[in-house]
Amino acid sequence: MKGVTLAEFSEFLASQGFPNVVEGDGQVRIAAVNTLDEAGDGDISFLSNPKYTELLSTTKASAVIVGRSVSTPTGPAVMRCDDPYAAVTAAIVRIHGYRSHPSWGIDARACVSADARVGPNANVGPWATIAPGATIGANATLYPGCYVGDGARIGDDVTLFPNVVIYDGAVIGNRVTIHAGSVIGQDGLGYAPRDGRWIKIPQVGRIVIEDDVEIGANCSFDRATLGRTRVGRGTKFSNNVVIGHGAHIGEDCMIVALVGIAGSARIGNHVTLAGQVGVAGHLEIADHVKVGAKSGVASSIKHAGDYMGTPAVEAAAFRRQVSVVHRLPEMKGRLRALEQQVAELRRKLDEAAGR
Amino acid sequence: MKGVTLAEFSEFLASQGFPNVVEGDGQVRIAAVNTLDEAGDGDISFLSNPKYTELLSTTKASAVIVGRSVSTPTGPAVMRCDDPYAAVTAAIVRIHGYRSHPSWGIDARACVSADARVGPNANVGPWATIAPGATIGANATLYPGCYVGDGARIGDDVTLFPNVVIYDGAVIGNRVTIHAGSVIGQDGLGYAPRDGRWIKIPQVGRIVIEDDVEIGANCSFDRATLGRTRVGRGTKFSNNVVIGHGAHIGEDCMIVALVGIAGSARIGNHVTLAGQVGVAGHLEIADHVKVGAKSGVASSIKHAGDYMGTPAVEAAAFRRQVSVVHRLPEMKGRLRALEQQVAELRRKLDEAAGR
Amino acid sequence: MKGVTLAEFSEFLASQGFPNVVEGDGQVRIAAVNTLDEAGDGDISFLSNPKYTELLSTTKASAVIVGRSVSTPTGPAVMRCDDPYAAVTAAIVRIHGYRSHPSWGIDARACVSADARVGPNANVGPWATIAPGATIGANATLYPGCYVGDGARIGDDVTLFPNVVIYDGAVIGNRVTIHAGSVIGQDGLGYAPRDGRWIKIPQVGRIVIEDDVEIGANCSFDRATLGRTRVGRGTKFSNNVVIGHGAHIGEDCMIVALVGIAGSARIGNHVTLAGQVGVAGHLEIADHVKVGAKSGVASSIKHAGDYMGTPAVEAAAFRRQVSVVHRLPEMKGRLRALEQQVAELRRKLDEAAGR
Repeated sequence: MKGVTLAEFSEFLASQGFPNVVEGDGQVRIAAVNTLDEAGDGDISFLSNPKYTELLSTTKASAVIVGRSVSTPTGPAVMRCDDPYAAVTAAIVRIHGYRSHPSWGIDARACVSADARVGPNANVGPWATIAPGATIGANATLYPGCYVGDGARIGDDVTLFPNVVIYDGAVIGNRVTIHAGSVIGQDGLGYAPRDGRWIKIPQVGRIVIEDDVEIGANCSFDRATLGRTRVGRGTKFSNNVVIGHGAHIGEDCMIVALVGIAGSARIGNHVTLAGQVGVAGHLEIADHVKVGAKSGVASSIKHAGDYMGTPAVEAAAFRRQVSVVHRLPEMKGRLRALEQQVAELRRKLDEAAGR
Repeated sequence: MKGVTLAEFSEFLASQGFPNVVEGDGQVRIAAVNTLDEAGDGDISFLSNPKYTELLSTTKASAVIVGRSVSTPTGPAVMRCDDPYAAVTAAIVRIHGYRSHPSWGIDARACVSADARVGPNANVGPWATIAPGATIGANATLYPGCYVGDGARIGDDVTLFPNVVIYDGAVIGNRVTIHAGSVIGQDGLGYAPRDGRWIKIPQVGRIVIEDDVEIGANCSFDRATLGRTRVGRGTKFSNNVVIGHGAHIGEDCMIVALVGIAGSARIGNHVTLAGQVGVAGHLEIADHVKVGAKSGVASSIKHAGDYMGTPAVEAAAFRRQVSVVHRLPEMKGRLRALEQQVAELRRKLDEAAGR
Repeated sequence: MKGVTLAEFSEFLASQGFPNVVEGDGQVRIAAVNTLDEAGDGDISFLSNPKYTELLSTTKASAVIVGRSVSTPTGPAVMRCDDPYAAVTAAIVRIHGYRSHPSWGIDARACVSADARVGPNANVGPWATIAPGATIGANATLYPGCYVGDGARIGDDVTLFPNVVIYDGAVIGNRVTIHAGSVIGQDGLGYAPRDGRWIKIPQVGRIVIEDDVEIGANCSFDRATLGRTRVGRGTKFSNNVVIGHGAHIGEDCMIVALVGIAGSARIGNHVTLAGQVGVAGHLEIADHVKVGAKSGVASSIKHAGDYMGTPAVEAAAFRRQVSVVHRLPEMKGRLRALEQQVAELRRKLDEAAGR
């Protein structure tokens, strides 16, 4: 079996800043990382979420990475460290590495304008289109079916998976990854009402995606009406996220699937928006805010912290509300009982007064 | 007019397990199935949802399929049976059949790797790409612009509508249909925080779509970080659904549009998730659960039944909550009135005590 | 510098029905329209949303369009008019115009069936596919990667951005614009249950998009099971909107991102559905209804007005509910205090009666 011994792997992790202790057979060979329930011989697995503790007894993994104080059954070899999740990340990178891309060079079946510039070692698949005035950076990979519009600028080491569409004039930074089917820079929903009809406002702004951003599949990020839509460095998006025209998203945010951010919203840095969150337009969210799944942010959030609900409030207040709402039918009964008791008291008191 | 007589059609339905009775002219000819309000001469229509009963009086259909006890006005011929909806399904299949696909064979304008295997009678449209190591089953149809990544396996009798993207290593079963623009197997939102930035965790798992699944347009189903994302046999999806990395969906489920299922969720068999439902990660939903539209499932659901709300609770409890919430402003008034009455009683009692 | 003087521009706007007054240097030259915070020398900007009033003090714009009574600091030249938002729309059209499209004619790399009809001056990009029996109107533009299915009809002056998919038989009116990745006419979620499995109902209806509709990116609009799905003239959609089979949307509506409209819903004219709204199937929404973001419409809305919440109620009632829900924990405390007071009163009254 290929791979490394657990002892060798332990040394590697220590060298990466994850000091650890091995219990059991350090000579077991590790060829892959896998989940506790799908792992088999030659796999190393891990326990990070305590929900899965009982899987330690049944896993077929050859070794498991666990926290310092987790009690483990007899079975696989054990590697203990402070942060199993971070350690397993390093393990996956070491053992499996990142995806490598097909090599097309500039495929003869791509449509590359003579007026476009394509950097060295770029990799442009068949059925890709690069319009006049567009720039593609060095080492960029465009999978089949991608479209890069007039004057758009794609940075170095960018990956566009199949059928990604970059509209005219969009600016994509370095090391950006965009998954299949996402669309960057289409017109926003900009119309002025006149006589009961909608007059289209030309959307003449652009969109700027900064370095190290990753965008999931089937997302749609509007260009700005005027000025720009901005996505800050290092921010990561899941799938089917929509960003409205002129919104600004800060750096190192985490935006989960099906989130919608309306036009001209201003989102700070290190913000997390969980799945299906909605953010109304023209408001601000401070740095280090986390908004819980399905919440609707209807007004600005000025302080870091956790928020939930529609309209979103501080998470602790939301949990109190939910708890009380769940007991509302009971409260309604108590209210009715009180009314009867008070009526009875009033009657008795009147009787007493009348004596 | 082509088509069949109503009497012939009645015999056909009976042979399919739908015993029925015809009232009116059995010799009327039926050439198409249509809705009550759009039907015309030669069309057969149906009444299943009682909301539309009044359309029976105005429909121009030549015949209508109704339940055993529905009262019908003079007009079109009537066919009575136990389950009009199931009968009309059989009628549509008989009269209109399923869509047939264009025939490209393997179009010369497709890009099929010499290292890919394509089964007999497969049909690959122009601008499709099949990467090295991919396998396409017999009788599969890939519409234009589809992409099948390295080592992906597409089963027999699969249909991929235009611009579907299957990432490397994904496994698609037999008789699966995927509508246009859907993306299967992209990386999930897997990052580990380090020093305020997000470090990408290579997403080295895969995704397995079992037999007889149908997926709507613009859906995005993540591959797993490790192990696999699984969609069980016979499950059906509407459009713009997102499934997170490592989620497992059971068999024969019905997942409506804009649903989001977070990573590592475990969904049972015969589960219905209505439109815009969200399911949090790392939880379980039992078999035969139905979750109402827009609900947010925040913790495991262990028993079959109907659930609603965010966080989702049993539907009956949710309806009680909604009913009480609607009367909350009134309850607040009653609470204030009680406080005044109690204060007044206290004063009177104190006065009485002071007398 | 190119552009026009502010005085010339003032005359132009007046001629367009926007009477206005210039304060300051009418000879300043205007070359572009921009936002207050991104504007620079040669830009004209505007103030419409009072949230941004303070930006008037810091903008680098050469001129600003403001309301009649807005107080303005010393700085840029000012143009006052009644409706700055409408005036700036006219300004953008005048100065920037609408996007012009690349000119491919019928690109040799498109796949156009010999049995399709393509109107004069149509513009079909590479990697587009036009199936047999399809019709493309005059002056239509199909960007690369678009697919138009068998027998579909695309009107005059239509724009399909890259990778749009139009299924067989769909009808698209004149001057319709569809942004990248949207899919029109796929099968809806139509299945009949039999023996615990889902039997597909052939989706033999079609979809009709009327004139002057604009559809954002990555939307998915189902064809009808029978009859048709309808989108009325002049209605505008943001991104990632889903419309179920057989729904009818009226004219001049505004449908924001991530909205889902279930099958057979009937939406009137001039209806606004804000972001992430859900509309259940088989119900009706009257003309001139506005539904607030994230709301869930669970039953018919018969009267014009503003609605919010899940289930959606009149907006004023919703705001009262939210306000009371926010004070529920406090109300619960008041209820408990009342119970104690009433118990105490009862005890005192009993004591008094016992004296």
